[in-house]
Amino acid sequence: MMPSATPHGFELTLPEWAAAELATRAQRELSSLEDRMRLVIELARTNFQRDTGGPFAAAVFDETSARLVAIGVNRVVPMRCSSAHAEVMALSLAQQAAGTHDLGGPGQPPHQLVVNWCPCAMCCGAVIWSGVRSLVIAGSGPELEQLTGFDEGPIHPSWAAELTRRGVTVTDGVLRDETCAMFRQFAASGRAVYNARQG
Amino acid sequence: MMPSATPHGFELTLPEWAAAELATRAQRELSSLEDRMRLVIELARTNFQRDTGGPFAAAVFDETSARLVAIGVNRVVPMRCSSAHAEVMALSLAQQAAGTHDLGGPGQPPHQLVVNWCPCAMCCGAVIWSGVRSLVIAGSGPELEQLTGFDEGPIHPSWAAELTRRGVTVTDGVLRDETCAMFRQFAASGRAVYNARQG
Repeated sequence: MMPSATPHGFELTLPEWAAAELATRAQRELSSLEDRMRLVIELARTNFQRDTGGPFAAAVFDETSARLVAIGVNRVVPMRCSSAHAEVMALSLAQQAAGTHDLGGPGQPPHQLVVNWCPCAMCCGAVIWSGVRSLVIAGSGPELEQLTGFDEGPIHPSWAAELTRRGVTVTDGVLRDETCAMFRQFAASGRAVYNARQG
Repeated sequence: MMPSATPHGFELTLPEWAAAELATRAQRELSSLEDRMRLVIELARTNFQRDTGGPFAAAVFDETSARLVAIGVNRVVPMRCSSAHAEVMALSLAQQAAGTHDLGGPGQPPHQLVVNWCPCAMCCGAVIWSGVRSLVIAGSGPELEQLTGFDEGPIHPSWAAELTRRGVTVTDGVLRDETCAMFRQFAASGRAVYNARQG
């Protein structure tokens, strides 16, 4: 493909169905971690079923009020952007809503990121830089890679300890079986896995 | 700060001076790694001196033609986005120009990313997902953190081997002294360092 004129900006957006979902749910309270993860799994499933991205979603909550601040879904292929993982989408949208790059900055409530598996090599770093105070995941074992074929990349061998050391608490294993069932649905659907360097 | 209405998209842009620079230099050939790094150091210096972001820049080249495809500078604070590192900006803009999330995809020439230091924990992953075939850096030691105060995060202990194993060759030490001199200029300027969770 010939390169087009060199752009000097790019926009990343949620799919229409997710923007509508967000408008409905924004500022609603979701008190339990299970309820939060259930929302995330539902977003991930809808994302691949509607062909708007991979089977990954994330949501940011205000831990004080239990309110939903932002959601994200994987947008790599439709947005033509390999960094448009669900975590980056949700964290960036939460930062736009909060008006700052630092969700742990002055005057901010503690923020929590809920994701449907252990963040990949890139997103582990993105979580730290975002300023969130806690990370909730459905699992962190090899199941994601085994069930879906997606590559998690070279995750730091002590990633959870590194997050904890930097003030981000990690809760693992929330709705793990439900998440694996959704990954199996994705695999059974025969949809594309888009790992890098397929040329 | 009160959260505003929940956004469902966000835009990341280069500063005006960098967009103008890109318009001037796009598609120009820069044959040597030193010439490419010199451009990157100049962009990083201009970025902090004009108060449009931190002292980090990146550029993507088509390795076959030696042409400049995209540039990026750190935009974290002005864009209110902790993921807006120079590497993410340059890689995302190159992907927009190429019309695909995979710079190593079918029909693409080999792409090279040139950055003024070892990518942070997040950007190591971003480099892998981008599809570039090579990474050129000015250095990878503790000098960046020591001279500027910026945190590189939990970089994988075998990051260079992990990149190589995934088909990304790494060239280290290009214009290292010139880069450290620029970091010293940044430190002497007294400008802010924006690491996460400053609240």
